[in-house]
Amino acid sequence: MGNTFGRLFRVTTFGESHGIGVGAVVDGCPPRMELSEKDIQPQLNRRRPGQSDLTTPRDEKDSVTILAGTEKGKTLGTPIALLVRNADQRPEDYGEVTDIPRPSHADFTYMQKYGIHASSGGGRSSARETIGRVAAGAIAEKFLKEKFGIEIVAWVRAAGPVDAGDLSTGSFTRSDVDRTPVRCPDLKIAEKMTALIKETRDRKDSVGGIVTCICRNVPPGWGEPVFDKLEAMLAHAMLSIPATKGFEIGSGFSGTTMNGSAHNDPFVLKGKKLGTATNRSGGVQGGISNGEPIVFNVAFKPPATIGLPQKTCDKAGRETVLEAKGRHDPCVVPRAVPIVESMAALVLADLALLQASRG
Amino acid sequence: MGNTFGRLFRVTTFGESHGIGVGAVVDGCPPRMELSEKDIQPQLNRRRPGQSDLTTPRDEKDSVTILAGTEKGKTLGTPIALLVRNADQRPEDYGEVTDIPRPSHADFTYMQKYGIHASSGGGRSSARETIGRVAAGAIAEKFLKEKFGIEIVAWVRAAGPVDAGDLSTGSFTRSDVDRTPVRCPDLKIAEKMTALIKETRDRKDSVGGIVTCICRNVPPGWGEPVFDKLEAMLAHAMLSIPATKGFEIGSGFSGTTMNGSAHNDPFVLKGKKLGTATNRSGGVQGGISNGEPIVFNVAFKPPATIGLPQKTCDKAGRETVLEAKGRHDPCVVPRAVPIVESMAALVLADLALLQASRG
Amino acid sequence: MGNTFGRLFRVTTFGESHGIGVGAVVDGCPPRMELSEKDIQPQLNRRRPGQSDLTTPRDEKDSVTILAGTEKGKTLGTPIALLVRNADQRPEDYGEVTDIPRPSHADFTYMQKYGIHASSGGGRSSARETIGRVAAGAIAEKFLKEKFGIEIVAWVRAAGPVDAGDLSTGSFTRSDVDRTPVRCPDLKIAEKMTALIKETRDRKDSVGGIVTCICRNVPPGWGEPVFDKLEAMLAHAMLSIPATKGFEIGSGFSGTTMNGSAHNDPFVLKGKKLGTATNRSGGVQGGISNGEPIVFNVAFKPPATIGLPQKTCDKAGRETVLEAKGRHDPCVVPRAVPIVESMAALVLADLALLQASRG
Amino acid sequence: MGNTFGRLFRVTTFGESHGIGVGAVVDGCPPRMELSEKDIQPQLNRRRPGQSDLTTPRDEKDSVTILAGTEKGKTLGTPIALLVRNADQRPEDYGEVTDIPRPSHADFTYMQKYGIHASSGGGRSSARETIGRVAAGAIAEKFLKEKFGIEIVAWVRAAGPVDAGDLSTGSFTRSDVDRTPVRCPDLKIAEKMTALIKETRDRKDSVGGIVTCICRNVPPGWGEPVFDKLEAMLAHAMLSIPATKGFEIGSGFSGTTMNGSAHNDPFVLKGKKLGTATNRSGGVQGGISNGEPIVFNVAFKPPATIGLPQKTCDKAGRETVLEAKGRHDPCVVPRAVPIVESMAALVLADLALLQASRG
Repeated sequence: MGNTFGRLFRVTTFGESHGIGVGAVVDGCPPRMELSEKDIQPQLNRRRPGQSDLTTPRDEKDSVTILAGTEKGKTLGTPIALLVRNADQRPEDYGEVTDIPRPSHADFTYMQKYGIHASSGGGRSSARETIGRVAAGAIAEKFLKEKFGIEIVAWVRAAGPVDAGDLSTGSFTRSDVDRTPVRCPDLKIAEKMTALIKETRDRKDSVGGIVTCICRNVPPGWGEPVFDKLEAMLAHAMLSIPATKGFEIGSGFSGTTMNGSAHNDPFVLKGKKLGTATNRSGGVQGGISNGEPIVFNVAFKPPATIGLPQKTCDKAGRETVLEAKGRHDPCVVPRAVPIVESMAALVLADLALLQASRG
Repeated sequence: MGNTFGRLFRVTTFGESHGIGVGAVVDGCPPRMELSEKDIQPQLNRRRPGQSDLTTPRDEKDSVTILAGTEKGKTLGTPIALLVRNADQRPEDYGEVTDIPRPSHADFTYMQKYGIHASSGGGRSSARETIGRVAAGAIAEKFLKEKFGIEIVAWVRAAGPVDAGDLSTGSFTRSDVDRTPVRCPDLKIAEKMTALIKETRDRKDSVGGIVTCICRNVPPGWGEPVFDKLEAMLAHAMLSIPATKGFEIGSGFSGTTMNGSAHNDPFVLKGKKLGTATNRSGGVQGGISNGEPIVFNVAFKPPATIGLPQKTCDKAGRETVLEAKGRHDPCVVPRAVPIVESMAALVLADLALLQASRG
Repeated sequence: MGNTFGRLFRVTTFGESHGIGVGAVVDGCPPRMELSEKDIQPQLNRRRPGQSDLTTPRDEKDSVTILAGTEKGKTLGTPIALLVRNADQRPEDYGEVTDIPRPSHADFTYMQKYGIHASSGGGRSSARETIGRVAAGAIAEKFLKEKFGIEIVAWVRAAGPVDAGDLSTGSFTRSDVDRTPVRCPDLKIAEKMTALIKETRDRKDSVGGIVTCICRNVPPGWGEPVFDKLEAMLAHAMLSIPATKGFEIGSGFSGTTMNGSAHNDPFVLKGKKLGTATNRSGGVQGGISNGEPIVFNVAFKPPATIGLPQKTCDKAGRETVLEAKGRHDPCVVPRAVPIVESMAALVLADLALLQASRG
Repeated sequence: MGNTFGRLFRVTTFGESHGIGVGAVVDGCPPRMELSEKDIQPQLNRRRPGQSDLTTPRDEKDSVTILAGTEKGKTLGTPIALLVRNADQRPEDYGEVTDIPRPSHADFTYMQKYGIHASSGGGRSSARETIGRVAAGAIAEKFLKEKFGIEIVAWVRAAGPVDAGDLSTGSFTRSDVDRTPVRCPDLKIAEKMTALIKETRDRKDSVGGIVTCICRNVPPGWGEPVFDKLEAMLAHAMLSIPATKGFEIGSGFSGTTMNGSAHNDPFVLKGKKLGTATNRSGGVQGGISNGEPIVFNVAFKPPATIGLPQKTCDKAGRETVLEAKGRHDPCVVPRAVPIVESMAALVLADLALLQASRG
């Protein structure tokens, strides 16, 4: 359970980190949309490790194949099946079972839940799991862009304590974001972030960060009260991304200290339509989009895998010291940018179809 | 759509603020559990307006009736239907249709979505909608307590800028929380909060706040990776509560500035079981409960309805000034406490049944 | 579980036969549709026992109240809650617990499943449960009629061995069907059915029958391959009605003996559109409506409750003879007619919204 | 939509007949179950065309690969992804678009629904789509057998007018069924069926038939009233199989002519448990299994593709004669046997987990 997201635009992902591959089945994508691997690969490339010396140096190709659901470059309205083969498959007899559950990892909880856990890598709790989301999200994004002109752009707002502040009033595009590997469109702050991440990496430690995402041109009326408010769906989607610890929309946690008189977004005429002068609501009121940009932040914890030795216990409860081998991401937020965009796209595509169903 | 929450322990709510009543149907509650209105009414009373001079003085009785699903004080395993009649029903000819959509309210977006909106009160976007959640949540809580010994306690951590800080390591009970109407168990801070809320009320303004919730004795293994991680379900649930703007679990946003070496929760032996020495994970790792207390914060914006005049536009786009009549909550967080607890209970009851389904 | 039907046009029913009442919550009905109790009551009246001396003489009023979801006679797009109070409520101390599970009833299986069973009447397995379906179905029907011009008409094709044959090529309306209490539009056969049912009743026995249903003006393109084919959804809906044992669409079981060359429906031009010369497909090809009338049969077993003494066992396995008191329906098919229509409407309304979601 | 079946034991299928492949993702299969391709391949082989000269001579290998969800031959509790590559892939430039929609095929309705249709073969409406069901069903069956000792056996009861009658009181196994290619365990009737099918094939025509399925050792208590009764789920599952036109359980349509006194199944003591002396209920009462064998019939129409020329219309409405090339199944019921078994297994596995969720 729990491997399917969405009601009408629905993605089911599968795959362990060291099995044959990872992938997704997308059901509900409208028919007659042009779609080929070329529409999906770019976001997978942005998600891929090894893009810069800021991220893990493992170079995973992550090349996607569409197994079903299209013909002659068009969607058929049938399920779109996507497969990315794992370069790093392990033989069946692979034996690296360890008695030390990694602190703040999923080793312990998977074993508690299932009584079994993939013997190498993170299995299903690995970051590779997000490949299916990103591949599916690229399809959702294409639908949203072509049908509604929606633009989704995310960036790194903060890496550790280096915080660029609220950049959502800028009109940054993905190419603005991608000008530096750290994916913060404020280039001065990006430099500081880069320095912090390198320094953290050299100390064999890791650091967290915050991703901001903006969704432009979302029509008013999307989102399903009561339980499936737009912000509830987004929060669900974002907190399902590995390593996330928080979500806030619009004024978020900082809005809790404000007075209503200062926080309320007054209506103004924008062209021929009603809009709001400010956007503390983050584009959503009463759980329904109001036509303003949807803006939210996602908090990522520092990656649990670090090179530094850690005091902990083995399964039997004996104190021990764990030293992770290999190299790992000192900071996941730059690579999390396309994942956040993808999950936002999946939420919006689903809500678009739900709203269309009202005729 | 959007009026049902949960997969196996499933609640559907209904009712507008000024219709005949509001209520819920709870499907999936296990059979043979003792249940009567007396089990449900206390949390409804805690949610009710008019409990103190801090909240809206409207005195709504909110008396619940079980319409179906029990016999001789026991659940039958069939749907439990709950009804709370509205004291304040409006006659059909009620005509208070206004041309001014209230800023940061749902008036505008409901009209955009449905092309129609309840003519008085908030209709379905009213805070009265949460009655169904709280009634259903009380049932979920009873199940969790009797079957697993789970305790769920929420309190007001912050009212506006008055922040009690992290109280989650205390062992507060609901009666500790309820010692003051403001529902902050730190009594000195509670005094300051009370003063702030009264002062805000006297200025005809409103203020936001933060609710913290702790769930104790949740067994390890609950939560469904990938998309239905425990924290994702909680985030969904919490952001579906009216006026919420943010959610964070464990270290949350503040954890983003930490290093992994300081953030990781090392394993230690607790009695005969493995636990963690710290709980920055907030009781969840890889989307699955690890047996530690589940701790999260929910951000509430300042209520949109204020007595102060507000510059805004009417539907036609003409500038105008809106002055709300009547009295409203200057701060919703004290009353939000049982709502947060109820939604947490609904999430946990659903995940309990999902985990049980694995046999 | 199992008390909700539909994905987008979704009904949840509740209520035991001898509790406070039975009812339904309908989520997903489009907004701005005129709706009052007057639109719902007629089908409830057709379902009601005591309509003629052919059915059980208990006179249940079954008067419906809309608790929520409409204002000034129009739907709001929010959940529509419906309640029908039970005239025959039993006091809490009612003690008619019997040790003899009624043969071919749900007494035994409910006890096996839940370990508890409503002490009187059938509880949730009672025919009164269908009230919620019929009330919800009346709303679905109104939507289908107003939006698409769809007409749904069912009738009694067979009562016991008295079979009117295939009447689907006629253009019968509901008033044609209701000309006799037995609800067979072939008046000569209706007379024979009436005689059979009376004779069966006088023998204190019961008899089964077949209901045929036709859905006219269903647009082509409805139904969701692969698993949610139109006929699969109909079969699901029909076999969920109490006392049903079979479903067939188009040529059904008799089509199994035919050759393909005789069974295939050739395409012909009908006006400006393609139609089929014959309709052995029953209006569905590949799980999707083709624009022809949808025609299906539903088999109902003879009611299990009879006045004749029956040899059986009590719970302890001791042989005994059960003699039911009171009077019961000798044949349910006349009253099943509006139930079949209602479930067909619920299926079609759901598929209508699903198809609309494709934009 | 419509490509997922089940709530807790959930299968999503994908794939067109002439794309890269067809397959399924199974979510919810319990962890730690031994599983390899060898457990799945046998049922795929039974489904495969080309097994005898009674079926289509195309020899499709249909070799399955488990892409994810297992390690070292055991399920991980994560989604099991299954892929069967198509031997007969068509190049992108394949151009066999025809202007004549095949009578009683899905060509016309898919075009009506999606505005696009796979250019060759049946696309998603092809019989190849059932590969995903059978592969997933084999996994469900293994779970049911190992955990509950459940046995599911289906056979051909009727081919055209040659009807073996009710064989459900026999104790036939799959090897009994497979003694003849026609899969009727009554060998004399099997001979007649074989002759009929050969004769039909030689006339370039096709013929329908009936499959009976029995599920033994299903524990009492499975099935979810009201809408998700065991027989409703089975009916849904069976009518989702291509070419099906009817479903009946227990006494089915023939029970409609009986009196209740003859139809009711009296309780008797069987060993230490209560059972029923007869099984006209087909193992289900009130939508819940009663511990007796579950017995049902599924009606299959004659295949629509025949060698004989057919008068019909092209898309523009011009009369024409269609002559299908190639060779096709004259009768699908022998190959439908494992498909019926698979769908029954998927229903039962889902209901098993639902019942387990009650703790």
